[in-house]
Amino acid sequence: MNCLNHLISMNDLSTEQIKQLIKRADDWATQPATIRQPLAGSFVANLFLEPSTRTRFSFEMAEKRLGAQVLNFAAESSSTSKGESIYDTLRTLQAMGVQAAVIRTKQNHLLQQLRDSLQLQLINAGDGTNEHPTQCLLDLLTIWQHFGRFAGLRVAIIGDLRHSRVLGSHLQALPRLGVELLLAGPQSMMRDAAELPSGVKIVDMAEAVQTSDVVMMLRVQLERHSETLLVTKEEYHEQFGLTLERAKSMKPGAVIMHPGPFNRGVEIASELVEADNSLIFKQVENGVAARMAVLESLLTGGKAQWESSLQTVNL
Amino acid sequence: MNCLNHLISMNDLSTEQIKQLIKRADDWATQPATIRQPLAGSFVANLFLEPSTRTRFSFEMAEKRLGAQVLNFAAESSSTSKGESIYDTLRTLQAMGVQAAVIRTKQNHLLQQLRDSLQLQLINAGDGTNEHPTQCLLDLLTIWQHFGRFAGLRVAIIGDLRHSRVLGSHLQALPRLGVELLLAGPQSMMRDAAELPSGVKIVDMAEAVQTSDVVMMLRVQLERHSETLLVTKEEYHEQFGLTLERAKSMKPGAVIMHPGPFNRGVEIASELVEADNSLIFKQVENGVAARMAVLESLLTGGKAQWESSLQTVNL
Amino acid sequence: MNCLNHLISMNDLSTEQIKQLIKRADDWATQPATIRQPLAGSFVANLFLEPSTRTRFSFEMAEKRLGAQVLNFAAESSSTSKGESIYDTLRTLQAMGVQAAVIRTKQNHLLQQLRDSLQLQLINAGDGTNEHPTQCLLDLLTIWQHFGRFAGLRVAIIGDLRHSRVLGSHLQALPRLGVELLLAGPQSMMRDAAELPSGVKIVDMAEAVQTSDVVMMLRVQLERHSETLLVTKEEYHEQFGLTLERAKSMKPGAVIMHPGPFNRGVEIASELVEADNSLIFKQVENGVAARMAVLESLLTGGKAQWESSLQTVNL
Repeated sequence: MNCLNHLISMNDLSTEQIKQLIKRADDWATQPATIRQPLAGSFVANLFLEPSTRTRFSFEMAEKRLGAQVLNFAAESSSTSKGESIYDTLRTLQAMGVQAAVIRTKQNHLLQQLRDSLQLQLINAGDGTNEHPTQCLLDLLTIWQHFGRFAGLRVAIIGDLRHSRVLGSHLQALPRLGVELLLAGPQSMMRDAAELPSGVKIVDMAEAVQTSDVVMMLRVQLERHSETLLVTKEEYHEQFGLTLERAKSMKPGAVIMHPGPFNRGVEIASELVEADNSLIFKQVENGVAARMAVLESLLTGGKAQWESSLQTVNL
Repeated sequence: MNCLNHLISMNDLSTEQIKQLIKRADDWATQPATIRQPLAGSFVANLFLEPSTRTRFSFEMAEKRLGAQVLNFAAESSSTSKGESIYDTLRTLQAMGVQAAVIRTKQNHLLQQLRDSLQLQLINAGDGTNEHPTQCLLDLLTIWQHFGRFAGLRVAIIGDLRHSRVLGSHLQALPRLGVELLLAGPQSMMRDAAELPSGVKIVDMAEAVQTSDVVMMLRVQLERHSETLLVTKEEYHEQFGLTLERAKSMKPGAVIMHPGPFNRGVEIASELVEADNSLIFKQVENGVAARMAVLESLLTGGKAQWESSLQTVNL
Repeated sequence: MNCLNHLISMNDLSTEQIKQLIKRADDWATQPATIRQPLAGSFVANLFLEPSTRTRFSFEMAEKRLGAQVLNFAAESSSTSKGESIYDTLRTLQAMGVQAAVIRTKQNHLLQQLRDSLQLQLINAGDGTNEHPTQCLLDLLTIWQHFGRFAGLRVAIIGDLRHSRVLGSHLQALPRLGVELLLAGPQSMMRDAAELPSGVKIVDMAEAVQTSDVVMMLRVQLERHSETLLVTKEEYHEQFGLTLERAKSMKPGAVIMHPGPFNRGVEIASELVEADNSLIFKQVENGVAARMAVLESLLTGGKAQWESSLQTVNL
C-alpha cells in the first residue's frame, strides 16, 4: 500500500486503498484485542470542536487498542479560548511529538487548508457538512461483511442529505466501488442535483426503500437547520422516516443502516433500530476496527501489517 | 462467589457477597500497586452526568490500577446534547466493546430501568437521591478495618437524610450486617419514618452523637434544596452540625466519618475533618480499593482472584 | 541532587539544581521515547483551573512518556462546583494515592499557602500573574541548547510584563545564571522598577531588540486587562511588537522566543513565528523534556537517573 498521508477526504484514497483498508479493518474486527500494539509509544490527539460521543469514543478505543497514548482536547477548556488558531494548536502538538490529530470541526474544508503545512497526520472525524471518511469506511466494511461484495448493490441514503457529511464521503466512494446510489428526502434537505456524480439518482421514498439492498437513514440535524422546520417530528416520520410500514416493503435480504446518533420516531421507527435486519450496532462495532485500520496505516505506513494481505485483496 | 451482574443497588448483593467484596477490597487496600492487572485489555467508561471529583477519580484510579483502559464522558460535550438517550449511549458503548459503565446521574432509578436491556456491566456511582452502593461498600470496609466486626455496632447517620443516596444504600446494608442504625437531622431533611426498615430509629442529636460507635455526618446538599433554607450555615452548624463541643461528647473509641465532599463549618467543624478519631480520609483511601473489588468482581466473575478467599471470609 | 519537594517557584531550586534539571531535560529531549518508564505505577493529577492547551498537553505527554497514569481534572465538572476547597481536593487526591498534582490557577501564591500541609508533590503550572517555573526551565533549556552557555548572554523580555508569570519565574532565575535581563514594553504593562532584582534594566524597544541575544516576546493577555486597552492591535504591534522591520535590526546570531500562545500580528509578526532564527516551536518541543525532568526528579528523588550526571554538570 502506498504510504497514506492524512485522511481528510475519501478522495485521498485510491479504490485499491479503500479495499485494502476494509480488508485490514475486517482483520481487526475479528481479532481479539490487545494481541499486538503497533502504535505503542505513539501519541494521538483527539480534537473534537463539536459535540460527539460515538465518534470520539470509537477513535479513542481504536487508538488505545493499538497501544497509542491519547490526548483529549475539548474546545472550551483550551487555548482556542485565548484566540489561538487551529493551525497553531496543531503545529504545537506536532512540536511536542504528537504523530496524529483526529479532528472534528464545524468548518467545512478546514483540514484541506491545513494539510500541506503540517507534518503530523490529520484525520477528518467530520468537518461541518462536508465529509466524514471514517464513517464511510465503517459503513463500507459493514456492507462488505454482510453482502460479500459491492458491485451491483443498490444503496439508498435517505433524509437530511443537505447537511450530511456522511453522504459527502459516500458520494466519493460508493460509485467507484460499483454501487448504485439512490437519494431520497424532503426537497428542503436535498442536494443540488448538479453537484452529484453521474449515476447518482434522486428518487421518491417508495423507490428508495423498496428497491435497495441497503436503506441508510440519516439523522435530521436539527441543530444545523437555521430556519424553523415546517413539519412536526410526526409529520417528518410519516413522510420521510423509515416507518414500520415502509420497512415491511423492503426487498428480501435488504438491511437497515444509520450512522447515528438516531432520533427514534423521527427518521426511524424506534422498533427498527435493533430489528433483525438492522446493522446499526454492527456499524458501531465496526467503527473501532475501521479506525484502527486507518490509524495503523497512517502511523506505520502500513508496512509489516499490510504485506501479507497485499496480494489477497479481492473484494 | 456467584457471578455479579451490575451493581446498581446494595440489594443486588447478598450479605455473603457484601462480606466477600469487603474482604477482597481489604486485600487490594493493603497490596502494593501494579502487581497484577486483571483487567488489562478491558475498557471501562465513566459517565458522570453530575459534577464529581472524588468519586470519578476514585473509579478512574481503581480502573487504571486494575489495568483497564478508561473512557471519560462528560455530559456537556457529548451526543446527549444531540438528544441521544442514555440507553442509546450505553448500547453504543456496548457495541464498541466497552465492558462496564460507571454512571452518575441525577435521575433516581434510571439504572434499574436499563439493567435488563444491556449486557455491559452497569455500576451505579450515585443516582439522584436514591443509592450510592460503592460509597456504602467503602464505608463498610472502613468500619470493618477499624472495629474488626459489624455485629453490635451502632452507627448514626446525621444531617441531610432526605437527599442522601449514601443513606439510601446504607439502609439496605447496615441492618443486614447486624449494625444498629440511628438517624438524626432537621425535620425538613428527614426521611419518612414509614419508609425505613424496621429497627432503624430516628433520634435527637444528643443521642445520635453520644451513643454511637460511628458518627457519620452528611453534606448539606444545597444544590438539591429547591426551597430557600430557613437557617443560616451557622445556625445549621449549631443545631445539626458536629461541633467541637458535640464531638467531645462522643463515646470513647467512637469515630467520625463523612462521605465527602464536606462543607467545613456547616455539617462538621473544620478542625474535626482531620482529627485523630476521624476516618474521613481513610474512607477516601479505601474508596479506590472498594471500587477495585467491585470492578474486578463484575468483569472477571471474580474467578481466579476469589477462590483463595472464598473459604476464609469470616467478618 | 538533593530531594526536590514541590516545584512552586524558581526560588525552590538552587542554581545547581536548575543546571541539573536542564542537563537532565536535555537527556530526555534527545532520547527516543518509551525506553524507560521511571514513573510506571505512579498517578499524577492535572488540575487546570484556567484554560490551557500547550501546558496541559505538554505535562500530559511528559507524564505518559515517563509511564505515569494521568488523571485530568477540569474545574467546571468537579466538586469545586459544590464548594470544595482546593486544599480538600488535593488532600483527597493524596488520600487516593496520587503522588503529584500539576496545578494551574488564577490565584497568585495559592500553592505557597498549601505547600506545608500536603505530602503529594505540587507542581506549579502557572499561578495567576506570579510564576510559571516549568516554562522558565524549558526556556533555559532552549537557550542553553542554542548558545551552550548562560553567562554573558543578554535576554530581552518584551511586552505585557505586568501580567507575565513567565517573567515572574525568569526574574528568579536568569540573574542567578549570569544572564543580563532587559525589559521593554508599554508603560501601562510595566513592572514596578522597585520590585525588580538589581541589574535588571527597563529599556526602550530599540535597545531591547537590537542589543540582545534572545528577544523573548510575551503575549498580550487581553483576558487579564480589566481596563479597556487604549491602543488597537495594529498600534500595539507598531509600538511594542516584533515587527518585520524590528526583527531585521536584531544582532547577528540573536534568536526569537515566545512562551505562546501567540497573537500573530499583535506582539509578533506572523511571518516571524517560524522564521529561521525563531526558537518558538523548539521551546514547545523542549517543554515535554523539561517537564519530564521535573516530574522524574520530584517523584523518584532523581536517584538512579541522576547519579551519572551529577559529576558532569558544567553548564
